[in-house]
Amino acid sequence: MSKERLYLYDTTLRDGQQTQGVQFSTAEKQQIAEALDDLGIDYIEGGWPGANPTDSAFFEVAPKTRARLAAFGMTKRAGRSAANDDVLAAVMNAGTDTVCLVGKSHDYHVTAALGITLEENLENIGASVAHIVAEGREALFDAEHFFDGYKDNAEYALAACRAALDAGARWVVLCDTNGGTMPAEVYRIVTEVIAAGIPGERLGIHTHNDTENAVACSLAAVDAGVRQVQGTLNGLGERCGNANLTTLIPSLLLKEPYASQFETGVSFEALTGLTQQSRMLDDILNRVPMKQAPYVGASAFAHKAGLHASAILKDPSTYEHIQPELVGNARIIPMSNQAGQSNLRKRLTDAGLNVEKGDPALARILDRIKAREDEGYSYDTAQASFELLAREELGQLPTFFEVKRYKVTVERRKNKYNKMVSLSEAVVVIKVDGEKRLSVSESMDETGSDRGPVNALAKALAKDLGRYSEVIDDMRLVDFKVRITQGGTEAVTRVVIDSADNQGRRWSTVGVSPNIIDASFEALLDAIRWKLIRDCAPEA
Amino acid sequence: MSKERLYLYDTTLRDGQQTQGVQFSTAEKQQIAEALDDLGIDYIEGGWPGANPTDSAFFEVAPKTRARLAAFGMTKRAGRSAANDDVLAAVMNAGTDTVCLVGKSHDYHVTAALGITLEENLENIGASVAHIVAEGREALFDAEHFFDGYKDNAEYALAACRAALDAGARWVVLCDTNGGTMPAEVYRIVTEVIAAGIPGERLGIHTHNDTENAVACSLAAVDAGVRQVQGTLNGLGERCGNANLTTLIPSLLLKEPYASQFETGVSFEALTGLTQQSRMLDDILNRVPMKQAPYVGASAFAHKAGLHASAILKDPSTYEHIQPELVGNARIIPMSNQAGQSNLRKRLTDAGLNVEKGDPALARILDRIKAREDEGYSYDTAQASFELLAREELGQLPTFFEVKRYKVTVERRKNKYNKMVSLSEAVVVIKVDGEKRLSVSESMDETGSDRGPVNALAKALAKDLGRYSEVIDDMRLVDFKVRITQGGTEAVTRVVIDSADNQGRRWSTVGVSPNIIDASFEALLDAIRWKLIRDCAPEA
Repeated sequence: MSKERLYLYDTTLRDGQQTQGVQFSTAEKQQIAEALDDLGIDYIEGGWPGANPTDSAFFEVAPKTRARLAAFGMTKRAGRSAANDDVLAAVMNAGTDTVCLVGKSHDYHVTAALGITLEENLENIGASVAHIVAEGREALFDAEHFFDGYKDNAEYALAACRAALDAGARWVVLCDTNGGTMPAEVYRIVTEVIAAGIPGERLGIHTHNDTENAVACSLAAVDAGVRQVQGTLNGLGERCGNANLTTLIPSLLLKEPYASQFETGVSFEALTGLTQQSRMLDDILNRVPMKQAPYVGASAFAHKAGLHASAILKDPSTYEHIQPELVGNARIIPMSNQAGQSNLRKRLTDAGLNVEKGDPALARILDRIKAREDEGYSYDTAQASFELLAREELGQLPTFFEVKRYKVTVERRKNKYNKMVSLSEAVVVIKVDGEKRLSVSESMDETGSDRGPVNALAKALAKDLGRYSEVIDDMRLVDFKVRITQGGTEAVTRVVIDSADNQGRRWSTVGVSPNIIDASFEALLDAIRWKLIRDCAPEA
Repeated sequence: MSKERLYLYDTTLRDGQQTQGVQFSTAEKQQIAEALDDLGIDYIEGGWPGANPTDSAFFEVAPKTRARLAAFGMTKRAGRSAANDDVLAAVMNAGTDTVCLVGKSHDYHVTAALGITLEENLENIGASVAHIVAEGREALFDAEHFFDGYKDNAEYALAACRAALDAGARWVVLCDTNGGTMPAEVYRIVTEVIAAGIPGERLGIHTHNDTENAVACSLAAVDAGVRQVQGTLNGLGERCGNANLTTLIPSLLLKEPYASQFETGVSFEALTGLTQQSRMLDDILNRVPMKQAPYVGASAFAHKAGLHASAILKDPSTYEHIQPELVGNARIIPMSNQAGQSNLRKRLTDAGLNVEKGDPALARILDRIKAREDEGYSYDTAQASFELLAREELGQLPTFFEVKRYKVTVERRKNKYNKMVSLSEAVVVIKVDGEKRLSVSESMDETGSDRGPVNALAKALAKDLGRYSEVIDDMRLVDFKVRITQGGTEAVTRVVIDSADNQGRRWSTVGVSPNIIDASFEALLDAIRWKLIRDCAPEA
């Protein structure tokens, strides 16, 4: 039986940006668009050109994607032609193949919020869509408040959809804008809409999570016949968020009846990158990934109950609804029981450290990790620091050099032009091969801008490591994340540093301290040590 | 029309404790049980007596509740009588009126996990339930893996339920243990179960959130006829969590068709305490409350989109599916680069600044906010910094004092005991009332621990502000958040500081710079200025 095509429309860059506290830069938007394209999303909504500078800038430098890039806007205002509406013109000027316009389909909103007649609104929808189509673009109409509108005045809500379809819209998207519609209602209303003559092949669904039903409402709409699903990565979005594509995609690919019925643009191979993409987005937002997130969360396949854990060892399907590998996630059986050690050995093997089953060092490493996690460390992502800790317990960590002391100064004062400027300076004293070496660096970059105390410290530390200097020459700091966390009873700073080298390696290290400079220094030291282990002949 | 009674069964203290990283103390269990009782939950499952010491201890000191307290356990093992099963005896010994036993209803699990015959399992269920009833207690049977079992062998899954009901169980709870069943399947299967002769008045539903459908599956089961819903506060629970009662309760009370059809033990008055109870649980767990949580999250009624914000001002129902007050939450209209002038004026009014519609300062303020957001600032949460920026544009920002320069030193070296220690020192030079003042502080706290350079800087800055010193005397730093973000083309640090004073105020300020010390200093300065505006007589 041939499968039906179901289309995925991502609005992380537009509705996702409505999340409180989220403001993407243009570079971040590019990075996310590329990730969405790799995943196999059909449509990527990039933003509302003209509504804010970042969105306009994004379309100017938008990556070439296999996915169709969509610009978002609203239907033209009353009293002018579509061609003469400057807000619509800014959207068209983004030059995308696809244009999605939101417009009213709830009669109350037409009169109360827009203050125009019901007829004028239908004319605005039709003329706007016709304008897009006349310009040779693909048109979508987001029917705002469709479900509330349908309940109040079904006739009018349908008329708004028909106005868009008759003008040539490829898709009409039924939006539950306030997120208040229950899944059973969505199913009933979509069924009625299709019965009223609007084909499901031209219908999309756009839901919000205000009753924690955004995913279920999307599935209910698909059950009823819509063939486009809108959502965002990690469920970002206005208020409680949009339908979570990070959940919907694996459900559509792996769960019945969807797996047998539909084909999407997402391959099973791309699906194995899902967990990583979800974490990447959290990294960009500097959010702590939600452990309990379905499919991709660190706890999604963690089996804490004793009964569950022992059954899992016999047959994972006893307490797992899918195999974690399918979405790039992994099973976790808490370290406290027997399985903890086999998990640890697996992780050590990944780091190139082979430890025999039953080696007492395994228990010592587990204890040490637990104690450090209590202090605020996290080894989930800082694989390189984890390896160094294990090497220390295994007696496989060479002492390349010793740090005797360091001193960092940050000064802010007026320069000769009477402008406040900052400058940081770092002095690092190390001992390498029995010889003491002092290095000093300041935080100025090539353009004369201050890059801060951690930058000065990193430069001073790398400046003179004796015979190791040339080994770390191709190493660079590529990311720096700071989080305030709880260590014992006090708040402490956790710094995670990502480093890379010219051999294509990328590694993460962690440092924790109440003092952010100390925490950064610890992570920097680990980063250098890890690199030296890789590239120096073993001596210890 | 009289309403049907729908029963709520909370398992926060049992299944909720299976959340990775969660381990309640006995005192915390008591506190949560009291909160659940205040809310009007019908059943509170307190834990598994005998399975871990905290659970056993809780039942010994359990609070007197209006709700029925339930002890959890499993059906007796094969080859012994119910009265002679020590695991079951420990559960009975907790002395609760209600006892809930989990048992197998999936044939595969009976043979593969338990290794007993299908008949033996039915006998275990029946004999265990009969034992509870004979002891004068109310019995529940949790039919583990019911939905997976039903799909594999419906006959047997139903036989397990009937064994419990025939032995006198008040409730049979259909459990989707692995969380993999879709809402439409739950609806279909529950409908078939009831059609097979098991009355909905004796059925409960217990779901997990592995496909983000736990709430929807619970509602689907209620739609199909079950009359007991199990879940946890804030959706705690094994793996991705259980059905979230914090969402289900307001949906059942406020949303149709549930509001008209059902009555629960939760009153509308108790419902207004829901947001506070959700935060209380996060407090106990030392978790950051999820902003996007439905109904109770800080963002649940936050309207960031400009179009939404302006409509909300006319009529909140345009973009809100319920009134936030009903669940004890509040509306937020955050500042962001998507905001319009009406949104801005509302926000200024909240800050006590009345600006006429059409005042040219409004456009200047919006431009300034946009420009600053491009640099990496975010005013969504930093309301106090937003106010200062607006005051500056409105000419309503007094110059209390001027910062001439500062210098911060962080030093790490060996102390006299040959241990590496850090110390930070800050010097701040300000001019106040024409007079120059130098202050110096170090980062040591009362216990002799280094609290880092930002701490030293904050102390030096607050140390001597001339006549303003006593005004800021009751002010303290309560939270400090750091984020690396993109400002222009370079990574910059954004620091958000939360301050509080003895008058119960709490305010947030933001600073941005490539230099974390500078960013922190800027946020600290804003925090002090905001406080001075509140507590000093106006002069400018």
